[in-house]
Amino acid sequence: MNFTEADRTALSNLLRWRRDVRHFRTDPVAPEQMDALRHALDMAPSVGNARPWRVIRVTSASLRAQVRDEFQACNADAAASYDDATRDEYLRLKLAGLDAAPEQLAVFTDTSPAQGRKLGRRTMPETLQQSTAMAIHALWLTARALNLGVGMVSILRPDRMAHIFDAPEGWQFSAYLCIGHPEFTDDTPLLHRADWQQNTPTAWEER
Amino acid sequence: MNFTEADRTALSNLLRWRRDVRHFRTDPVAPEQMDALRHALDMAPSVGNARPWRVIRVTSASLRAQVRDEFQACNADAAASYDDATRDEYLRLKLAGLDAAPEQLAVFTDTSPAQGRKLGRRTMPETLQQSTAMAIHALWLTARALNLGVGMVSILRPDRMAHIFDAPEGWQFSAYLCIGHPEFTDDTPLLHRADWQQNTPTAWEER
Repeated sequence: MNFTEADRTALSNLLRWRRDVRHFRTDPVAPEQMDALRHALDMAPSVGNARPWRVIRVTSASLRAQVRDEFQACNADAAASYDDATRDEYLRLKLAGLDAAPEQLAVFTDTSPAQGRKLGRRTMPETLQQSTAMAIHALWLTARALNLGVGMVSILRPDRMAHIFDAPEGWQFSAYLCIGHPEFTDDTPLLHRADWQQNTPTAWEER
Repeated sequence: MNFTEADRTALSNLLRWRRDVRHFRTDPVAPEQMDALRHALDMAPSVGNARPWRVIRVTSASLRAQVRDEFQACNADAAASYDDATRDEYLRLKLAGLDAAPEQLAVFTDTSPAQGRKLGRRTMPETLQQSTAMAIHALWLTARALNLGVGMVSILRPDRMAHIFDAPEGWQFSAYLCIGHPEFTDDTPLLHRADWQQNTPTAWEER
C-alpha cells in the first residue's frame, strides 16, 4: 500500500477540522455510521495488541441523567476553584454536549487484560490507557470523516463513573464521548476562539 | 468543510495500514517530512487546549546508545518474567527498531502546564497523558500517509528515561518513537502474524 498526495491532503484536512464538539443537533446517527465508529476502534494501535478499551453505548435515560448530574457537580466544583474574573469566563464556556448528543459512549480501560500477555506494559502499565486514548482518536477522526462531531468529556470523577456503570474490577474510566451532528464546523478550537487558551506550537527541541 | 467518500476511504486505509514498525531502512527522512510530523502534533486534541506534549528529537549517538541499553535491560527483564516456552516465543519477536531508525523522538508530558489553565483536568489529571497519546497517534497516521513507519517503544523505565534526558521537574516520560522508511508494509499487526496475540474485536455493549 502506497499513499499519495490526495491521501495526505485528506488526512491533513481531517486533523485540521476535527474539533471537540459541544453543540449538537438532536437528530439520530445512522446505525451504519455507529458501526463505522466501532470498527475504527478495532484498527487503533494497542500495546501488545491487547485492545484494552471497553465501550458502553449509553441509551438508558436514567444512566444519561446520572452522568449529566455528575458533570454538573464536577463543573460547579471546577468553577468554584477559580478567582471571580476567571470563574465568570469559565462559566461562559459550554464544555459538554450531554444535553443534546444523540449518541453517548462511556469508555473504560481494562487495566489487566489477558490479551497481549503483558507484552510492552511491564515497565509502563500506562500504555494501556495510552492505547485507549489512541482508539478514541481513531474514532474521533472517523466521525469527522462522516461529518459527525465528537466531544470528549472529562469533567467527571472516574470512581463515580465506575460506580454509575457498575464497572467490573480493574476497569478504569477513560472518557465519556458525546457523538452527533454538529451545529457548526470550525478549523479552530473553541477555547482559542473564546480566548481561554490560544493555540501554541508544539515544544520541540533537538539533542 | 464537508468530507466525502474519498476522504473516508483515505482515512480507513490509513488506519488499516498503520503499523507499529520495528524493521527500518537506514536512509534518512527528508527534513520537510519531519516538519510535517511536527505540524501534525500541533493539530492533535488536548485537554483545555493545553498541548502538554514535549518532544526531543534525538540525534546524539551517546543518548541513542543509552536508550538502546535501557531497552535491552528492560527487554531482558521482561523475557525473564515468562515461563520457558513463552520466553522463547517472546525472544523471537523484534520489539524495537532502535538499531536502524534514522529518526528518534523522546516524548514527554508536562504534568502541570500553564496552558489550558487547568480546564478539564481537575478530576482527571490523566487527560494530559491522553492528550499526548492522541498527539502521537496524529503523528503516526501522518507518517503513514508519507509512507514512513513509526514504532512506539515502551519497554523502558520512565524514571530512567527522565534521567537520561535530564527532563525538567514535572515532565513524565510518555514514549520513545522510532521513525523511518519501513522495510515492508502490512495491514495486520506483527503480533497477530507471529501468533503472540490475535486481533480481537472491540468490547462494546449497550445499556
